[in-house]
Amino acid sequence: MTAFFSHPDRIFASYFIETAFPLEQAAATMAGEQSTGTFLRVPGETDQLREQFAARVESIVEGEHAASPSLPGSGTPKNWDGIRRTATVTLSWPLHNIGPSLPNLLATVAGNLSELQAFSGLRLLDLSLPSAFLDRYQGPQFGVVGTRQFTGVYDRPLIGTIIKPSIGLTADQTAAQVRTLAEAGIDFIKDDELQSDGPLCPFEARTSAVLGVLREIHDRTGRRIMYAANLTGELDQMLRRHDHLVREGGTCLMVSMNSIGLPAMTALRAHSQLVVHGHRNGWGMLGRYPALGMNFVAFQKLWRLAGIDHTHVNGLRNKFCESDDSVIASARACLTPMFPAPNKGCEVMPVFSSGQSARQALETFRALNSTDLIYAAGGGIMGHPGGPVAGVRSLQQAWEAATLDIPLNTYATTHPELAAALELFGN
Amino acid sequence: MTAFFSHPDRIFASYFIETAFPLEQAAATMAGEQSTGTFLRVPGETDQLREQFAARVESIVEGEHAASPSLPGSGTPKNWDGIRRTATVTLSWPLHNIGPSLPNLLATVAGNLSELQAFSGLRLLDLSLPSAFLDRYQGPQFGVVGTRQFTGVYDRPLIGTIIKPSIGLTADQTAAQVRTLAEAGIDFIKDDELQSDGPLCPFEARTSAVLGVLREIHDRTGRRIMYAANLTGELDQMLRRHDHLVREGGTCLMVSMNSIGLPAMTALRAHSQLVVHGHRNGWGMLGRYPALGMNFVAFQKLWRLAGIDHTHVNGLRNKFCESDDSVIASARACLTPMFPAPNKGCEVMPVFSSGQSARQALETFRALNSTDLIYAAGGGIMGHPGGPVAGVRSLQQAWEAATLDIPLNTYATTHPELAAALELFGN
Repeated sequence: MTAFFSHPDRIFASYFIETAFPLEQAAATMAGEQSTGTFLRVPGETDQLREQFAARVESIVEGEHAASPSLPGSGTPKNWDGIRRTATVTLSWPLHNIGPSLPNLLATVAGNLSELQAFSGLRLLDLSLPSAFLDRYQGPQFGVVGTRQFTGVYDRPLIGTIIKPSIGLTADQTAAQVRTLAEAGIDFIKDDELQSDGPLCPFEARTSAVLGVLREIHDRTGRRIMYAANLTGELDQMLRRHDHLVREGGTCLMVSMNSIGLPAMTALRAHSQLVVHGHRNGWGMLGRYPALGMNFVAFQKLWRLAGIDHTHVNGLRNKFCESDDSVIASARACLTPMFPAPNKGCEVMPVFSSGQSARQALETFRALNSTDLIYAAGGGIMGHPGGPVAGVRSLQQAWEAATLDIPLNTYATTHPELAAALELFGN
Repeated sequence: MTAFFSHPDRIFASYFIETAFPLEQAAATMAGEQSTGTFLRVPGETDQLREQFAARVESIVEGEHAASPSLPGSGTPKNWDGIRRTATVTLSWPLHNIGPSLPNLLATVAGNLSELQAFSGLRLLDLSLPSAFLDRYQGPQFGVVGTRQFTGVYDRPLIGTIIKPSIGLTADQTAAQVRTLAEAGIDFIKDDELQSDGPLCPFEARTSAVLGVLREIHDRTGRRIMYAANLTGELDQMLRRHDHLVREGGTCLMVSMNSIGLPAMTALRAHSQLVVHGHRNGWGMLGRYPALGMNFVAFQKLWRLAGIDHTHVNGLRNKFCESDDSVIASARACLTPMFPAPNKGCEVMPVFSSGQSARQALETFRALNSTDLIYAAGGGIMGHPGGPVAGVRSLQQAWEAATLDIPLNTYATTHPELAAALELFGN
């Protein structure tokens, strides 16, 4: 499925499948289950109704055979030939089955599919949506361009960090850490996803203290540091917290996408004046097992339409379990338009984090061929032997080298902060 | 974790883990990642802060060894002994880390855990929450008792069915099918999750037509058939559709839980006057692979607090991939109080469906020892050789036999509709 493909009135979804059944039969089962069919053909399922509403199997591309079932509970056909096949299957549905509705889209393209006995593996890979979704949903309000305008950072990644420890600092302690980071030259600071509105660090107190520090630094230096305040909560709380951020001069809010769901995001987006930082914690549940769940390429499309401006993609050589190929595929997807020009493309800014330091900058730039990202480091800044000022500087230098296509070690000979970072974190 | 365990100010969560690392170390990694820790100990992580905010490892119960990693991307320790261990690990967190907030609970007990390299398997099994959650959230408004009051059906399951084909009928065709089912003696009818508000079968037109039929039947016979109208959509749409149902005399709304997310459910519950039928489509993504995701026992607790009154559990010998043991564990969990008396227990009514007919009634009753359920059949009703009236009657007879503990074949000798069903569907 190409990035720019968008049928005017059909929804497309592609899947990885693994099945002991003939591929054509398995694909037809998927299409039937998710549209007009049921286990038995029922009286009302007329040919005319099928013609008008049934999902279609658009393509089946066979892959390698699987040695054993990837998921439990699957069945085998009578007279099974003993081969467990895999394939990439693309289905399509008429838009009029549901209209341009993200919640109903999810029930249609995912729904009960992954519980079907015919499959010992089934994963949603990608989606292509009619532009009616773009008319119905607001998409990112700010995206890459707006994030750069809010911060005044151009032609390089935003250098970011996360407040640590994740939980346990008071509002004043958080603000003190923000001051240190801000004085060190950071562009972007975010709350941890574990920190939202506990009684010992309430949202209002914390964000007022942090944004007070950032206003002071702005008044003194002109720098506009973006703080993604985690307002994840019930919808009424999120709307109130948004307004609090606006009053305090904030420019960014953060939500845990899997905690709030798409309709709350859509409602928050309709109200929001701020950049939306979409945190994907919980993603491992949907993404980690290759024969189940969905690819992040599909996931991020739903959330872009609902209105996020940033989202997390892990990072190269990260400390989680994700492969570098998967990280780059996710980041590229974030920067790829969802609809053909002249429509707004809904691009969002990918956030690289987890074990990131100066050492991954060149690889990241080469793989992505873009600086439109947030490059977030914790130990890479606070753990730098020259302190956080040198830590931020080392990251900026690493990205200067990357965009100039100069090997990091070469650039380090004239940039001592980078040299110290490479010595500590490796190359 | 027992059903009635509830610590006044700590959240408990239990997990299945699979790891190449020593179990104590692996459990400590989980606790650290989801509270005060990060990959490196950071300067602000003082002993006092840890004492006050850190997650605790409450217990580790070792299970069988795993022959190979269940998930990709996992690591092994230096000097690995070659053994991949499994265990049930219970962690606890101070409630004050987040306060009684379901969205923040999800980020805390799930969050990034399943992406950690230390684990080749990690699944959330169960949760135990302080009763502060019960003060904050409304829980089921009607549950089992209210569902029985709305319908006037006591001492047996509600016999239910799903409108088929799933998608493609017009509003009038849907109402005609409802009339057939209602005349046949059904107690409960639901929309398919694929049918919500498409332009060819708009929500308002469909539900007005259906509820008009049900009002007419009520006026004539006194029977109050419950119709779960699928109003899944954006929050503003859902609230408007709820009000439409109230105006039309509806008693039940249906939402796809995974499509709407917890905050939208909480907001809908605050507004609702109707029984909430929580459809779990998409559950396979979270539930099907045993080494990832979560058990339905944990999932349904979140949604009960948010306000569902019914939820799906599949059925015995279902046509999906779920085992009978898992089905019964889910159903029992739905009927088990979440908090000790005298608090409201938040019990919800389990919905048995997928390939259900008269033949599973006795087994289901024996396994559950309760008739507090909705027993939904499609082919088991419409496919009965005596027509839908006989189909409904066969299900009622099967449950009479079950509650009298009479073998179905014995009861069938004096109940011809049951006899015909057993002949068609097997026993």
